[in-house]
Amino acid sequence: MPERIIVLTAEPTTGEAGRILRKELSSCSEDRDETTTARRMRELFLFMADHADHLTKTVIPALQAGAVVISDRYADSTAAYQGVTLQGIVPDSVQWIRSIYRPWNVIPDKTLLFVLNPREALERLGARSAREKFERNDFLKEVDMNFRLLASLEPERFVQIDAEQEEEAVSKSALQAAVGLISRGR
Amino acid sequence: MPERIIVLTAEPTTGEAGRILRKELSSCSEDRDETTTARRMRELFLFMADHADHLTKTVIPALQAGAVVISDRYADSTAAYQGVTLQGIVPDSVQWIRSIYRPWNVIPDKTLLFVLNPREALERLGARSAREKFERNDFLKEVDMNFRLLASLEPERFVQIDAEQEEEAVSKSALQAAVGLISRGR
Repeated sequence: MPERIIVLTAEPTTGEAGRILRKELSSCSEDRDETTTARRMRELFLFMADHADHLTKTVIPALQAGAVVISDRYADSTAAYQGVTLQGIVPDSVQWIRSIYRPWNVIPDKTLLFVLNPREALERLGARSAREKFERNDFLKEVDMNFRLLASLEPERFVQIDAEQEEEAVSKSALQAAVGLISRGR
Repeated sequence: MPERIIVLTAEPTTGEAGRILRKELSSCSEDRDETTTARRMRELFLFMADHADHLTKTVIPALQAGAVVISDRYADSTAAYQGVTLQGIVPDSVQWIRSIYRPWNVIPDKTLLFVLNPREALERLGARSAREKFERNDFLKEVDMNFRLLASLEPERFVQIDAEQEEEAVSKSALQAAVGLISRGR
């Protein structure tokens, strides 16, 4: 197998918009007043600005240099999570968010979706002291449904991995999917 | 006339997203490579995040308190300016931007559009040493066309003011439009 450079990256990024988001995600403030809509829109657009930043500074230059890019969360996560926060604010929120990304996003060759019952996911987090604001069972159940919707819309791009398995088996499944992509070249 | 509180505000705001924008608008960097699309999208979404911030922190609370809000630039400016930067990136860029604002924007009762030939506008700026990156004649001609398009789409909301007049006349026309709104109440 020829040498490949692999860039591991994540969203939110450590850029300006990403830093604002990371700070706010770690706080658990609830928004339940007349400014709710605007605050949730602000969050959506910060995720979009951060995604654009990510493309500009990391993803596009890495791809141009022939590297493989693996990102922990990407535009689909925004469609899934903010698709929940914007329910009732815009009709078909997931599709609306997808439509805003469509003209400018760089679509991944494959997206690994780790499928796990939200209750089990929260139990695995049990040991960690601080929860991020989205880490609640009712919220995550809807995020989970949105991810399944996204996977059903693009079944060729999404690789669903059964994350209920033991850690080693999950890791092996993910590695298999990734190795297939990396050895295939571009 | 009963006492009214008038809140004068502006976009970009002095909030987090607004500060990033103000810093970048004062630099004149041109973007002409493969990351152009993403960088222009980043700018659009920072303007949207900042607008949402503006609604949350200033506009909605002020309106709730019964105040009159006068903003120097608002969502229409983003549709007009970023409608130019996104030409060729999204079809019907002005309409596309308007459609993203539609589900969540707070629409002004009236919008004052100061109509002025871009060349004349730049001449008036002549004395100022530093130009912002959008302050170029070719760019502003397209912005001007977008503002006229916006005004034609909502003729009842837009009050067009002939800004080719002398300063005093312009100021008088603007004041007339504003006084009419303020004395009318909400």
